[in-house]
Amino acid sequence: MRAAVYYGPNKVEIADVPEPSPGPGTVKVKVGYNGICGTDLHEYYAGPIFFPTEPHPLTHAQVPLVMGHEFSGVITDIGSRVTGWSEGDRVAIEPIYKCGHCPACKAGNYNICAQIGFHGLMSDGGMAEYTVVPADMLHKLPDNVSMQLGALVEPMSVAYHAATLGETKPGDTAMVFGAGPIGIGLWFALRGKGIDDAFVVEPSATRRASIEALGARTLDPAALDVPAFIADHTEGRGADAVFDAAGVTPAVETALACVGARRPMVSVAIYEKPLTTPLLNLVMNESRIQGSLCYTSADFQAVIALMAQDAYDTTGWVESIAIDDVIDEGFEALHAGAKMKVLVDPTI
Amino acid sequence: MRAAVYYGPNKVEIADVPEPSPGPGTVKVKVGYNGICGTDLHEYYAGPIFFPTEPHPLTHAQVPLVMGHEFSGVITDIGSRVTGWSEGDRVAIEPIYKCGHCPACKAGNYNICAQIGFHGLMSDGGMAEYTVVPADMLHKLPDNVSMQLGALVEPMSVAYHAATLGETKPGDTAMVFGAGPIGIGLWFALRGKGIDDAFVVEPSATRRASIEALGARTLDPAALDVPAFIADHTEGRGADAVFDAAGVTPAVETALACVGARRPMVSVAIYEKPLTTPLLNLVMNESRIQGSLCYTSADFQAVIALMAQDAYDTTGWVESIAIDDVIDEGFEALHAGAKMKVLVDPTI
Repeated sequence: MRAAVYYGPNKVEIADVPEPSPGPGTVKVKVGYNGICGTDLHEYYAGPIFFPTEPHPLTHAQVPLVMGHEFSGVITDIGSRVTGWSEGDRVAIEPIYKCGHCPACKAGNYNICAQIGFHGLMSDGGMAEYTVVPADMLHKLPDNVSMQLGALVEPMSVAYHAATLGETKPGDTAMVFGAGPIGIGLWFALRGKGIDDAFVVEPSATRRASIEALGARTLDPAALDVPAFIADHTEGRGADAVFDAAGVTPAVETALACVGARRPMVSVAIYEKPLTTPLLNLVMNESRIQGSLCYTSADFQAVIALMAQDAYDTTGWVESIAIDDVIDEGFEALHAGAKMKVLVDPTI
Repeated sequence: MRAAVYYGPNKVEIADVPEPSPGPGTVKVKVGYNGICGTDLHEYYAGPIFFPTEPHPLTHAQVPLVMGHEFSGVITDIGSRVTGWSEGDRVAIEPIYKCGHCPACKAGNYNICAQIGFHGLMSDGGMAEYTVVPADMLHKLPDNVSMQLGALVEPMSVAYHAATLGETKPGDTAMVFGAGPIGIGLWFALRGKGIDDAFVVEPSATRRASIEALGARTLDPAALDVPAFIADHTEGRGADAVFDAAGVTPAVETALACVGARRPMVSVAIYEKPLTTPLLNLVMNESRIQGSLCYTSADFQAVIALMAQDAYDTTGWVESIAIDDVIDEGFEALHAGAKMKVLVDPTI
């Protein structure tokens, strides 16, 4: 079968590799679509970061490995000791390997497991015609959720998890900084949580237009005094939750100037370096910065339920490509900012 | 009467001013001791910052004003419409003026009132033989709490409030960065909350020795890999709460490398400028930075109750001076780092 195999920086090959077979506790999935993540770009241009160069403690795998951790598919074969799943089941995959016994795992927060691994980073992933996954990674997709949406459950769950840490309630005012895929996912998640009063702050006119087409209200930080606008809009209260999905100093500065008293700025960005951060803003109104990482199964279930209610729309920001084009039309186009979200179809 | 009057930067005079008389809802207090706060130093060297140069919306006062917002005393005269207080009552003063109707005040968080004022910054304060305060600022001091301790209730309440935001429970591991007066107050507050496993991180040997003499365990960040020590000490869990009472980049960096998953770093420092902050640490274990400002009456009550149980010790870090010496032996000595905490006795 064909697969996108990661060897190291700038070395990803579309290769012919053997089809995997399911062992005990695992199932074989025919991949529908596999999304390209920012993490994949980091691995391609500056890796290996997450890809293990010696056997990973949980998966025992190391590079070369098949890429791809955001995917949907259909079960085609079932290993021993797997119950509750059938061939033909349409699924989204929650790609986390967890140790199960660290304090975070014991507390149910396995997204911050000390040894965490990802299917498609620490094992052969979904940028292939088939992949074999542990049955406990499977989430059933309702019939009315497409395979394309199924591949988006993973990144949308990253955003949903962050939205939950914002501790918002209907009637609140929320702000999302950055209208990339996670920012878009935050906007959908907030809407799904009943937050109608949300603003997306994004300096790029292209990205603003893209999320506006989905129904979002945007603010251009180059044209508007955003903190003054929010202070006025909230009668001085400030935003009830702000979300940083941009990861750059101007976004963090503005976000911390907008967040209300005792309210959070949720950080769901991969900060490439420490940022100059106005911590005094946190002190003066007892606000906080709350980190958010990945998701747990509750987030997957919430996103799939919202997708079944038609709450997510891929128009204008998601496109599909063939696996042979993953470098040119995938990594390079995303790296250049020419595309927003790319799903790889491994069958073409 | 004699008073330390603030006119502007580097201009504080020990002057003869009229004794104030209590109006409706206020009492006259003969000041026991008044502590010099870091805020006072900022006002003296770089002010006016908090001192109003036009009438303050709540107090209607402006400079020149008598300094001093950390003080104890004895009630000597009682204005009309004051009930529940008698001449001779020994008191500590919670010096906050609040608007009472902003969202923060309505939520009981008047420490972050949008219009907040302080007695001794936005009105004539306690660095004088007498001052007149609203009766709702008074907290009764038990007979076994000295006037010196009474003047420390205010800064110890700043620390106690921050300790509470750490959300610790007995058995937890806590860390305090910075062994100045607020760091010392954090250590006392944590001990008062039943936290026996606390470490104070402080680069100054003098300050380490000072807090060690009170019974604290200290860590020297120049001699020890503090995050590695804490990881080992907590079996990889990380500290359950860390407190930044230092306000400098190395402290914040180390604190964020020590804080455990989903646990807080409480910021109780006045950051003079934005710091380079490793926000990625927050994301990777879903920890948070929580700002802490001042106190409310619950903190005053908790500190006074602990003082009555002999939980605070002024040995080695608190000293008293005469009001005539406030500049040389107060501001200048504190600014030079030659003293830790200075209480002004306005009667000598």
